[in-house]
Amino acid sequence: MRIVILGAGRVATHMAKALHKNGHKIDAVWSRTIESAQRLARVVDSFPVNDISVLPTDADAYIIAVKDSALQEVIAKATKGREGSLFLHTAGSMPLSVFDGYTENGGVFYPMQTFSMEREVDFRAIPLFIEGADARIRQLAESISEHVYELSSDDRKYLHLAAVFACNFANHCYTLAAEVLEKKGLPFDVMLPLVDETVRKVHELHPKEAQTGPAIRGDKNVMAAQAALLDSRMQAIYNLMSESIQEKA
Amino acid sequence: MRIVILGAGRVATHMAKALHKNGHKIDAVWSRTIESAQRLARVVDSFPVNDISVLPTDADAYIIAVKDSALQEVIAKATKGREGSLFLHTAGSMPLSVFDGYTENGGVFYPMQTFSMEREVDFRAIPLFIEGADARIRQLAESISEHVYELSSDDRKYLHLAAVFACNFANHCYTLAAEVLEKKGLPFDVMLPLVDETVRKVHELHPKEAQTGPAIRGDKNVMAAQAALLDSRMQAIYNLMSESIQEKA
Repeated sequence: MRIVILGAGRVATHMAKALHKNGHKIDAVWSRTIESAQRLARVVDSFPVNDISVLPTDADAYIIAVKDSALQEVIAKATKGREGSLFLHTAGSMPLSVFDGYTENGGVFYPMQTFSMEREVDFRAIPLFIEGADARIRQLAESISEHVYELSSDDRKYLHLAAVFACNFANHCYTLAAEVLEKKGLPFDVMLPLVDETVRKVHELHPKEAQTGPAIRGDKNVMAAQAALLDSRMQAIYNLMSESIQEKA
Repeated sequence: MRIVILGAGRVATHMAKALHKNGHKIDAVWSRTIESAQRLARVVDSFPVNDISVLPTDADAYIIAVKDSALQEVIAKATKGREGSLFLHTAGSMPLSVFDGYTENGGVFYPMQTFSMEREVDFRAIPLFIEGADARIRQLAESISEHVYELSSDDRKYLHLAAVFACNFANHCYTLAAEVLEKKGLPFDVMLPLVDETVRKVHELHPKEAQTGPAIRGDKNVMAAQAALLDSRMQAIYNLMSESIQEKA
């Protein structure tokens, strides 16, 4: 397909690279600043633009990977005179209905990953969640990812929520561990082999089956002694997580 | 050194292999069943025994890697007639004082890792926490690990507590994520690229700096909408974790 990329941030960059690598032609890259557009355009053999109105009108698909807060405005400008093309946004938290009134060929193209500019990713391994009536959406998705799922805007809320637990809250558990260690002058690094192994295990087992520790063993002595070492908020977290582990066991 | 291993479980196995690999002579392996002792003895070119009283009396060190509940009994039997040798236990949750009354050459040798029988580990990368007055303990530790820390029994309690957050509670976050996904018919596998990347980040950044998500952004709309999707206990966890993320930011 001939594709235009709107945005030059982390999602836009990794997605444009994946499309380019898989044989699609990136007609143009738009970004608010020409420098950002140029930086990405160079990498994907494309044409940099900082004015939406000069973008080609005949590309097959326009992929909009911009901040949630800018999405509506970019959709309004990009669809103008291009209503017949396919328009996809990449924002996990925004519904399909953001296209209402602008185009009937809207869709969602949401990769479930946290991207860094510096780190290359294997896009084929990233789950890609799509939504929209147009059959070309799935075709395009399958050309860059081996894990394509259709998901409604309503269900995508749950996907997002799950990601908060699996990423944000898991990471916060590391922060709390680091705080406990720092009291004794130990660096968080001493946890890394354990943290790595914990994650490796859930590649093979359901996390419920991989659970270890005093709560799942019902070791009340250890649990009481550990809770007593904590301040009141961390104690509340400790007790609530322990109860939840026991309830889900 | 000439070493006797007491135990043939996961810790005993990985530690015996690491010692053997690094030039120590494993004189004997004791286990309650001769089959277990044989299985490990074969791997580390040693002699299997299921009766503590027949173990050599002149080894340099006796490493006791048995269940917490069996430790006291094994120490009592193993030290008898061997009081002058070095005795080490590998139990993170047991104090140095378990040796009191049995030997004055006791020490702790605690590897911070969760072991599986099937998976080979790079023991040199595993943090090894030691305790005890004898200078040979550090020497032996440094012969198998590049990350040796001295830690008192009291401070080791905090290490354990940190491990509960970094491993047990982080894993429980995955369980909760899996539960949210299952409601929508999605497998936990769709989270794995995100989970992997979350862990890779804390190899480079302090977890506090790696934090992402609605709580750290102070995005109250998303937080309220997400909490509303949850049952009461998970809602309590969601709110408490979010508050804690904001407090530690």
